[in-house]
Amino acid sequence: MTAEKTESTYEKVVELAKRRGFFWPSFSIYGGEAGFYDYGPLGVMLKDNIIRIWKEAYLRENALLIDTPVLVPRAVFQASGHVDKFLDIAAECDKCHLRQKLETFTKSAGYEEVFDTVESGLSFVRDNVVKCTNCGTRITRVYDVRQMFFLPDQGSSGDLFLRPETAQGIFINFKILNNLFRGKLPMAVAQTGKGFRNEIAPRQSLIRMREFNMCEVEVFVHPEKKFWAEIEYEDDITICPRSSQPVTLNAREAVNSGIISSNAMGYFITLTQQILLKMGISRDRLRFRQHEKNELAHYSFDSWDAEAELDGNWIEITGIADRNDLRNHEKTSGESMSVSTEEGDIVPSVIEPASGVDRIVLSVLMHSLKTRENGYTVLSLPPDVAPYHAAVFPLMKKNGMDQLARKIFRSLSLNDPCVFYDESGSIGKRYARQDEVGTPYCITIDGASLEDGTVTIRERDSAKQIRIAAEELINHGLIGNPSISLDKFKNQPS
Amino acid sequence: MTAEKTESTYEKVVELAKRRGFFWPSFSIYGGEAGFYDYGPLGVMLKDNIIRIWKEAYLRENALLIDTPVLVPRAVFQASGHVDKFLDIAAECDKCHLRQKLETFTKSAGYEEVFDTVESGLSFVRDNVVKCTNCGTRITRVYDVRQMFFLPDQGSSGDLFLRPETAQGIFINFKILNNLFRGKLPMAVAQTGKGFRNEIAPRQSLIRMREFNMCEVEVFVHPEKKFWAEIEYEDDITICPRSSQPVTLNAREAVNSGIISSNAMGYFITLTQQILLKMGISRDRLRFRQHEKNELAHYSFDSWDAEAELDGNWIEITGIADRNDLRNHEKTSGESMSVSTEEGDIVPSVIEPASGVDRIVLSVLMHSLKTRENGYTVLSLPPDVAPYHAAVFPLMKKNGMDQLARKIFRSLSLNDPCVFYDESGSIGKRYARQDEVGTPYCITIDGASLEDGTVTIRERDSAKQIRIAAEELINHGLIGNPSISLDKFKNQPS
Repeated sequence: MTAEKTESTYEKVVELAKRRGFFWPSFSIYGGEAGFYDYGPLGVMLKDNIIRIWKEAYLRENALLIDTPVLVPRAVFQASGHVDKFLDIAAECDKCHLRQKLETFTKSAGYEEVFDTVESGLSFVRDNVVKCTNCGTRITRVYDVRQMFFLPDQGSSGDLFLRPETAQGIFINFKILNNLFRGKLPMAVAQTGKGFRNEIAPRQSLIRMREFNMCEVEVFVHPEKKFWAEIEYEDDITICPRSSQPVTLNAREAVNSGIISSNAMGYFITLTQQILLKMGISRDRLRFRQHEKNELAHYSFDSWDAEAELDGNWIEITGIADRNDLRNHEKTSGESMSVSTEEGDIVPSVIEPASGVDRIVLSVLMHSLKTRENGYTVLSLPPDVAPYHAAVFPLMKKNGMDQLARKIFRSLSLNDPCVFYDESGSIGKRYARQDEVGTPYCITIDGASLEDGTVTIRERDSAKQIRIAAEELINHGLIGNPSISLDKFKNQPS
Repeated sequence: MTAEKTESTYEKVVELAKRRGFFWPSFSIYGGEAGFYDYGPLGVMLKDNIIRIWKEAYLRENALLIDTPVLVPRAVFQASGHVDKFLDIAAECDKCHLRQKLETFTKSAGYEEVFDTVESGLSFVRDNVVKCTNCGTRITRVYDVRQMFFLPDQGSSGDLFLRPETAQGIFINFKILNNLFRGKLPMAVAQTGKGFRNEIAPRQSLIRMREFNMCEVEVFVHPEKKFWAEIEYEDDITICPRSSQPVTLNAREAVNSGIISSNAMGYFITLTQQILLKMGISRDRLRFRQHEKNELAHYSFDSWDAEAELDGNWIEITGIADRNDLRNHEKTSGESMSVSTEEGDIVPSVIEPASGVDRIVLSVLMHSLKTRENGYTVLSLPPDVAPYHAAVFPLMKKNGMDQLARKIFRSLSLNDPCVFYDESGSIGKRYARQDEVGTPYCITIDGASLEDGTVTIRERDSAKQIRIAAEELINHGLIGNPSISLDKFKNQPS
């Protein structure tokens, strides 16, 4: 079995996702809408497992959870700067009317510039010849587009926006949350939910959507110390600092040598790596890259991206930003955002590890896609990330094998509803179907099962089998059951 | 300990919710917005547990999960009838400009009428004297208000709406889902997510919000048989049929006697009761009431509401509706919605159990609120619904008790992150704090723990304690551990 790293992995995953029910384009019976995707039955289970791993990791850091509305009144995004600054600088071809970000046109023409105002864009297209990527006409029309979806004048609610990030819902509740946390610092607050951006050009299915899923954490720290906790993980991390060569170091070394600017930034970079690996991202296809100065969002003054390698490109899946949002809300709302410490009152700084759930789902699928020597596809997902933890099959639909199989299936389902039952088609075909969607174990009830109560368990990646008592399975479950530890599959015939 | 059924339960819960972090009004630092609430740390955990119970129950019914966008293009809601029919008939006082649903004004004046067009409302206020509930001026101005939030002309996406229900996302994917289900019927599809309604008058915190959480299931059945599966639950249900007296029957009896119109309707009424009881709704404060003809939504021709008694009022928390949506989408989209069966091609009917998560959260809190003889509050939540499964305390912060307590806490957290550690304040105060938020077990590390490795476990409702080995806890967890079954607390001194 070899890992797939060819250019076609993305297309293979998108085809598999649609055929087996991980995800597909939304609203297809009405012609579809760019930038919207549905998660199907297997996709919801995979996505929910990914979110659960994130949530459990942060609960273990004593993070507080919160869930705030996606509809947000103007005052919040006025204070945060999003109303004035969260804009795309776009351009439209006068002839064929293709609309794209101005940077998409200029990059195709070989320019490296980044634009944050209409003026800078207009001045650039006056001084340089930038041609339409579609028809070759020279670009002259430059304008700005609000990235937030906007609902003007909604009766008593006034102007509403759909949030482009969940973070502001945490910042504006900082004092309430800190009181619940008994006034202590540092404090972490975590939120998962939907975000919305009216992208000019949505693309690549789950990579750039108009409606997407986020997992964000705001870590409030002393602004000078920026300390969370001693860094205990000693995992090597591939680090790409701004304006210097990539290095491989653990987070403690990177902080001590000044490559990473603070303990909190280093702590959450290495925690992010732990979480992503647990979700099924490949270690050798993950790196942490520091933003260039001109890449930084309007609210951030240092930022590192966890990037996954997908078909040869590095794609951001988590960003760890050093932000300073509380002062804006303090100024605009007039409410204090300070915390009393032994050294006096301070307004905390914020370290924000923010993940794009959909990009992680896609990356996990692409990193998990393997091909067996016989050409069959295997999704090598971590067992507790896989949509189904196990499938149960009767070898044949006769002699009582199917009755016993259904009985074992029902017993397993009582403890773990993520078990699948299948009695249709040859046993080889049923194994192949489960391999393709990442089910780590297949349990088969055969003739011997009827006599001695044992069943076979086949492990997905090795395709090897062991035989154990059905009772053992029912009493101890599948994931983490020592009787079916992976070692036992090693010496079995395949 | 006595159950609270006084008028003040709602106010007590809202006060507790804000003070301890279950939920509170959103955007308070900017003056707030009616109809929007934040879930705080304890509320997110409670809400997520409630959603998990629903999801596991439907996975055991072999339901398919799906997750579709909240932003939906016009074509979908044009076909479903929501664009034309999902309107509130409102009225505004000419003098004081109070705006309410017309029915709110007419009900205050003692009328029973229900209005579904502006014309019927105008004609009513011409023929009857309806006065403003605020200033007494006669009402003459009647108009309609779109209940859906609307985003006109969003670039390439055209008109978008925020969904008022998750159901349409399932209907428009019916063929894709049924293909994944190998063309079989009956088939159930479940979706949880946010819904949005631009309510004229949001009220009572989680009861009527502009942005809310739903758990919806669409059960596709043969349109004549409407059969899901044999009804095995024999639980008594309080049933209030349209135009006749309430009865207590199990679902099978109610279907056989024709009180409930189909097997599928009866099956999902009794399953809904099972699920709500598991979530912590009190059996004696739950009933199922059939809609009056004039109450039915535009898409429904029979409907039963699961209602919870809250401070003497019966509030809908789940609706089980018999719908016929697929034909509308077949007609408008031109895509077939039929399924091949042995008896020919049919378009399935739909039975929809749809739950308002926020209303369930509020009802569970209100039904769980108890007061001890000493006046202290206890939230008597089911153990696996409670935000924390356990709290760990050192009896005192000295002699190594706190080190051992932290060690036990860390071991427990590895298996179950919903454990809380507290070492501040008297032990009585710490017990009271956990009782108030529903933590079923408190584990205390005392002097004896240092010598023999045992700890005390105190059970919330009885306030009684037993002593067991810490190892036993760490190896077997709390929920479902036979060593700490509730029977063991019965004969202990309190």
